[in-house]
Amino acid sequence: MPVTLVTVSLTELSRDELTRTLDELRGAYDELRGRALALDLTRGKPSAEQLDLAEELLGLPGAGTHTAADGTDTRNYGGLRGLAELREIFGPLLDVPAGQLVAFGNSSLELMHECMVHAALFGVPGSTRPWAPGSGAAVLCPVPGYDRHFALCEKLGIEMIPVPMNGEGPDLAEVERLAAEDARVKGIWCVPKYSNPTGTVYSAQTVRGLAAMRTAAPDFRIFWDNAYAVHHLTETRHEVADVLAAADEAGNPDRPFVFGSTSKITLAGSGVAFFGASKSNVDWLTGHLGKRTIGPDKVNQLRHALFLGSADGVHAHMDRHRALLRPKFDLVQRKLEEGLSGTGAATWTVPEGGYFVSLDVLDGCASRVVALAAEAGIALTPAGAPFPYGKDPNDRVIRLAPSYPPPAELSDAVDGLVLCIKLAGVEHLLRG
Amino acid sequence: MPVTLVTVSLTELSRDELTRTLDELRGAYDELRGRALALDLTRGKPSAEQLDLAEELLGLPGAGTHTAADGTDTRNYGGLRGLAELREIFGPLLDVPAGQLVAFGNSSLELMHECMVHAALFGVPGSTRPWAPGSGAAVLCPVPGYDRHFALCEKLGIEMIPVPMNGEGPDLAEVERLAAEDARVKGIWCVPKYSNPTGTVYSAQTVRGLAAMRTAAPDFRIFWDNAYAVHHLTETRHEVADVLAAADEAGNPDRPFVFGSTSKITLAGSGVAFFGASKSNVDWLTGHLGKRTIGPDKVNQLRHALFLGSADGVHAHMDRHRALLRPKFDLVQRKLEEGLSGTGAATWTVPEGGYFVSLDVLDGCASRVVALAAEAGIALTPAGAPFPYGKDPNDRVIRLAPSYPPPAELSDAVDGLVLCIKLAGVEHLLRG
Repeated sequence: MPVTLVTVSLTELSRDELTRTLDELRGAYDELRGRALALDLTRGKPSAEQLDLAEELLGLPGAGTHTAADGTDTRNYGGLRGLAELREIFGPLLDVPAGQLVAFGNSSLELMHECMVHAALFGVPGSTRPWAPGSGAAVLCPVPGYDRHFALCEKLGIEMIPVPMNGEGPDLAEVERLAAEDARVKGIWCVPKYSNPTGTVYSAQTVRGLAAMRTAAPDFRIFWDNAYAVHHLTETRHEVADVLAAADEAGNPDRPFVFGSTSKITLAGSGVAFFGASKSNVDWLTGHLGKRTIGPDKVNQLRHALFLGSADGVHAHMDRHRALLRPKFDLVQRKLEEGLSGTGAATWTVPEGGYFVSLDVLDGCASRVVALAAEAGIALTPAGAPFPYGKDPNDRVIRLAPSYPPPAELSDAVDGLVLCIKLAGVEHLLRG
Repeated sequence: MPVTLVTVSLTELSRDELTRTLDELRGAYDELRGRALALDLTRGKPSAEQLDLAEELLGLPGAGTHTAADGTDTRNYGGLRGLAELREIFGPLLDVPAGQLVAFGNSSLELMHECMVHAALFGVPGSTRPWAPGSGAAVLCPVPGYDRHFALCEKLGIEMIPVPMNGEGPDLAEVERLAAEDARVKGIWCVPKYSNPTGTVYSAQTVRGLAAMRTAAPDFRIFWDNAYAVHHLTETRHEVADVLAAADEAGNPDRPFVFGSTSKITLAGSGVAFFGASKSNVDWLTGHLGKRTIGPDKVNQLRHALFLGSADGVHAHMDRHRALLRPKFDLVQRKLEEGLSGTGAATWTVPEGGYFVSLDVLDGCASRVVALAAEAGIALTPAGAPFPYGKDPNDRVIRLAPSYPPPAELSDAVDGLVLCIKLAGVEHLLRG
């Protein structure tokens, strides 16, 4: 049988059949390696075509245009909270009242870092002591999750406690138990819509549960990284319940820290980031930011407000991204189905938004798949990356990022990946 | 005699003469107050006319232009050290080899904050322990100095030890003594060219002394805030000795942290900031920055490289700033001379670059002058601001920032200030 048509369940093959299959797969793999590919599925970067959608930004605001709606000269110092007109566009998209939204810098990760660093040094509103290294502070980490969240905690010596994800978000019962039991548990990382990497959309029940649960720590924070708030891959604009409103209703108004950015809306790296929270949290953060800087790049904020225009303008722009991204995600699904369906060698997510496909291979095989792919010139995110300390206890999860490569390269890369998954799977079964 | 002509030395007046002068000054002050002015000499902000000089930036790089010299797509993520072409323009201006210069963010204060925060949390290369709050870490603060440097230390619980400035920079003997004596002394703040607020240009001897002195702390750092590197007010482009080279020669290559920015070259708040240091310091900072962000706004860096072109382009641009700033500084000097020369009520600096004039009034009078001016609608930087913890031990220094107001307003403001200085001086002499 041709290698690409191994669609029978590998686990049902006899040892002889496995050995024969291994030979075939190795032959195919040697051929793949011989092609000296240089493909990259590692990071959730927008493609050049996606960035082209915002090309007009590069000439904005244009000479002579530098005054904000309230008369502010955007070219000069000041205005720590950012331009009101931009906050008004993004308030409804992030479910944060514009008056509680801060537009600051070019990176939401930077704002998360800022919050964590100041929590470590000084605590947050409601803290009885800082979350400093050595204080025992811990944060719940739904897994698989976003490696940069985890790197930030690791750097600051904040212990990470993994919690499994399910179809509605993190396992709520487990989160409730851990948060209620231990005052060292200071927070939880959440990507509530189209989670990185599983594509999960948090259910309303999960959101309400997180907002309302009893926590032993009086200064518990939900780090609500709404990175994919408007990043739909289907015509359905999935909604997630309003976490600030839910927390407010539950008497925990200070619990959520909401983050967002335009990095995957306009330009990655030259966009605008947002922080939304209760008034006391906003005062806390801007109090710290005010010692660090005299203000954000307001010209870039004006540029964005002019380019995007309104929340509807953002949605229309995201439809144009979807037109470019959807075929790539469809291609990945088709290739995975063609190559792996029925083999039992992998399962994968079918995301309706966001930037990733999460792939579960046979337990113990993820690192081997990544190594095989690397040797064949296909760069994948390191196995383990979506877990705290880079350790996937089952060595099972691989994150795919289909957005950046052109379709032909993506096609080759997924073909190669499929082969590596099968090869690693057969090797594993022959060992086991 | 008309009030504005009190040019005799106040200290030589008899009590009767002082009383009569006080009445006259009070009358004039009441009249001033009656004018309900709203003038502001507080912050070193560029004027709208100065910002207009960079208006072309607002349309750059322009649609279709987004590729850096090395082929990088500036619109996408990455490139933590910033665009090479921009670093090559600013390397010679800041006396930092371009390979050791990082272009990052819109605010050098932010980079100083980043260095201080990471020193507090983790220490710097060479540290045996972090400079954390409670560690006793202290920093030398030449006074008068820049309030935002001091606010940063105060926030982080880093003790500030004032050191007097003289005409060549901080009192070197005193700095050498303090640094050699006490391992808690971890660094010194320096604005080496056209110091804020005194306008001092550090002598070569001072620079070499700071670079070479023995320090008890193995991790001593010079925070070299070269904020006014190219900000000349005369045709003489004053040079300051190369601190990185001097430190390297002295065997202390890791000692200087160099900072700079285009905030007062192009657009305040929408410019580019720089950090320069030894390779190990650069690796240290970018290692931390890499956990915080996926990269700086490279489009803004490309915009700046296109607009400024070269180091010569920067100098030419600064000449245009000088043409706008010089008349304002001349106006201040003329008004101060006309109003205060010979009165003994104040002395002041005659800066050849930078953004400030530093004014010494009679001891014990600075707060009163600022309060009187405020009541008359003339906002001045709070007395004490140029000192650690906001405390001027002699209540003597007032910082003037002439750049922002239009000439007519500046003229009114300095006239009013002169009156307040005389009034406070006479009040003081009558009390004393």
